[in-house]
Amino acid sequence: MYRSASAGHLLDLVRGGRARTRTDLASQTGLGRSAVSQAVTALIANGLLREVGQGTSTGGRRPVVLAFDQQAGVILAADLGATHSRIAVTDLGGEPLAEVAEDIDIARGPGIVLGWVEERFEDVLTLAGRTPGDVRGVGMGVPGPVEFATGRPVSPPIMPGWDGFPVPERFEERYGVPALVDNDVNIMALGEHRVKWSDSEHLLFVKVGTGIGCGIIAEGRIHRGALGAAGDLGHVRVSGHDDAVCHCGNSGCVEAVASGGAMARQLGALGLKARTSRDVVSLAKGGNPEAVRRVREAGRLLGQVLASAVNFFNPAAIVVGGDVADADQLLLAGVREVVYQRSPPLATQHLKIVQSALGDRAGIRGAAAMVIENVLSPDAVNQALAAEPPREAIA
Amino acid sequence: MYRSASAGHLLDLVRGGRARTRTDLASQTGLGRSAVSQAVTALIANGLLREVGQGTSTGGRRPVVLAFDQQAGVILAADLGATHSRIAVTDLGGEPLAEVAEDIDIARGPGIVLGWVEERFEDVLTLAGRTPGDVRGVGMGVPGPVEFATGRPVSPPIMPGWDGFPVPERFEERYGVPALVDNDVNIMALGEHRVKWSDSEHLLFVKVGTGIGCGIIAEGRIHRGALGAAGDLGHVRVSGHDDAVCHCGNSGCVEAVASGGAMARQLGALGLKARTSRDVVSLAKGGNPEAVRRVREAGRLLGQVLASAVNFFNPAAIVVGGDVADADQLLLAGVREVVYQRSPPLATQHLKIVQSALGDRAGIRGAAAMVIENVLSPDAVNQALAAEPPREAIA
Repeated sequence: MYRSASAGHLLDLVRGGRARTRTDLASQTGLGRSAVSQAVTALIANGLLREVGQGTSTGGRRPVVLAFDQQAGVILAADLGATHSRIAVTDLGGEPLAEVAEDIDIARGPGIVLGWVEERFEDVLTLAGRTPGDVRGVGMGVPGPVEFATGRPVSPPIMPGWDGFPVPERFEERYGVPALVDNDVNIMALGEHRVKWSDSEHLLFVKVGTGIGCGIIAEGRIHRGALGAAGDLGHVRVSGHDDAVCHCGNSGCVEAVASGGAMARQLGALGLKARTSRDVVSLAKGGNPEAVRRVREAGRLLGQVLASAVNFFNPAAIVVGGDVADADQLLLAGVREVVYQRSPPLATQHLKIVQSALGDRAGIRGAAAMVIENVLSPDAVNQALAAEPPREAIA
Repeated sequence: MYRSASAGHLLDLVRGGRARTRTDLASQTGLGRSAVSQAVTALIANGLLREVGQGTSTGGRRPVVLAFDQQAGVILAADLGATHSRIAVTDLGGEPLAEVAEDIDIARGPGIVLGWVEERFEDVLTLAGRTPGDVRGVGMGVPGPVEFATGRPVSPPIMPGWDGFPVPERFEERYGVPALVDNDVNIMALGEHRVKWSDSEHLLFVKVGTGIGCGIIAEGRIHRGALGAAGDLGHVRVSGHDDAVCHCGNSGCVEAVASGGAMARQLGALGLKARTSRDVVSLAKGGNPEAVRRVREAGRLLGQVLASAVNFFNPAAIVVGGDVADADQLLLAGVREVVYQRSPPLATQHLKIVQSALGDRAGIRGAAAMVIENVLSPDAVNQALAAEPPREAIA
């Protein structure tokens, strides 16, 4: 056990590349050399820091160079979709070490689905050659609204049986580490941001699949809003479609006309074989003119909604993901057409509108990033050092 | 001169009520007693901290209680409008000590207007019994887009002669302190948040005057967006008004139909005496049925736009200010009607939609808060202590 109010901050400085030696740490924090030394010793004992060589001398002894050890532990990450889920184990830098993806219906309820997740967690740990004792945190995305503070789904429309279910507790008990649960679009936005857009402070990630949702990154962090309801773009009204009744009870919602689910219904009514958003994309990619026309028009309608979001929020980038984004450039072309025309020049001057680079792996990258940033935050590190014996003492 | 990497952080702890004594500061930061002592001595010499009595003993000597001294300096604040401006001097807690308001046309250009501001700054200092040497920072709002990093207006439509003008430099040179300039709606949002809504993380401030603009508070800070263009709600399209041509070049913008300026034109075309947004409000308050109908409908159109913003951003509150908000509850009634109907239950469950409590004083409160938070930030305090001789040494 080591009590310190500053070890976590010192780790942060090394991890962020702002300090490399004990001397750097002392001069950047105003802490005395012995306080720095004790904290570094505790961090080394905990496995988070290691000594990696010697730096250049500025007069006396050559200083020992410190580095954050990404391999000091692992993170378990899950991205649960409506019918398909992905599970991964990553290192503490968020790099996946092993992953698996399988079809499983979220509607089978938390008992069955979380049991399946636990088995897959064991699988990926084995694949990566790591053990449950290496796990430092668990991160998970689910396809519905989540009260982030408790990690419990809140009246999720497509997740019967999950309302209020204490998802994190199950994993916190099993692994004895923090578990965080968030909405799937939020973690996709975070993943895309951390891996591809970390230089931009403000980003929107729009998922167009069966429904339409949006994850918001503001100042580099997920913006969840006052009650975790932020990003609910699917129920913004688009003009000219007041006859389209939405499952939310209103009419003219963009999700009721431009989502993969809505297009599948429209194409199905024409006698085409389209039950899912993937069917719509297949038809469009195959050149079916009705499907092509609808996906492009869906892009324009989404563009109406995003133009307002651009005026309001002024993001540096809009990243479009989800099944329907795979329809080549059809969807994006419609989005770009309307956003660049409707939003003011200052807001669109440097605005990028692009397809998701991570595709269906954005979620696990984001789930891992979310929990890494939590368990390696200065406060969490200080608490961990104070609460636990160092790793050596366990062995 | 006193160099420290932690004095600013110590001040923050005292200012935030998290530490009251040197012992508190040492235990909360991990710094040694002598490091804390030196930093506190420097902060006392600079006037920011003072000793205010003795606390309860926990065994040894009764510890000396420290307090932040709001009177250690003053802030000059200016809220420049299109035709009317307000100038104030506040203490370091942001409380106004003296203020003046006068009609002055922003279109007279920076030379004349900033000269006028300087004279009014001297007036309010005199009124408050303070001197230019007491000034710790200058904050200003202007009615147009501003590149916040440099404080320069960027192609402001109603501020001829101001494009790219180095506004902060003028005041930084005169007073030798930081000067910050931002868009007027941003500082109004900040003022309303800091004075009335500091318990809420996320807030929208909508100003409906001659035009329509919005200031966004996200996690307690002004959200400016990638290029400072955030909050540009005036040019979001509303449905059913494609014939209304906007000065921005598009049509159907909410500002082209629902702003005070647009309503004045509509009423003027009917032969009514309405040249400004204030005239519209006078007519509506006087019961003119055309004016009443238009203001209420303007509220509904604004509600359309805000419903999208609520879905997207999930604020805890929408505060409506500007001339047209003074039309009793007419505007607000229209806004509430549409937002509560159009936005999802989770986002509106606890959403407050209210009139600005600070009215035309929101701007100066926000301008002061903006600069106080800048000059009392830990880094700024550390730099100030390192750069300047303590106040006693000047006297």
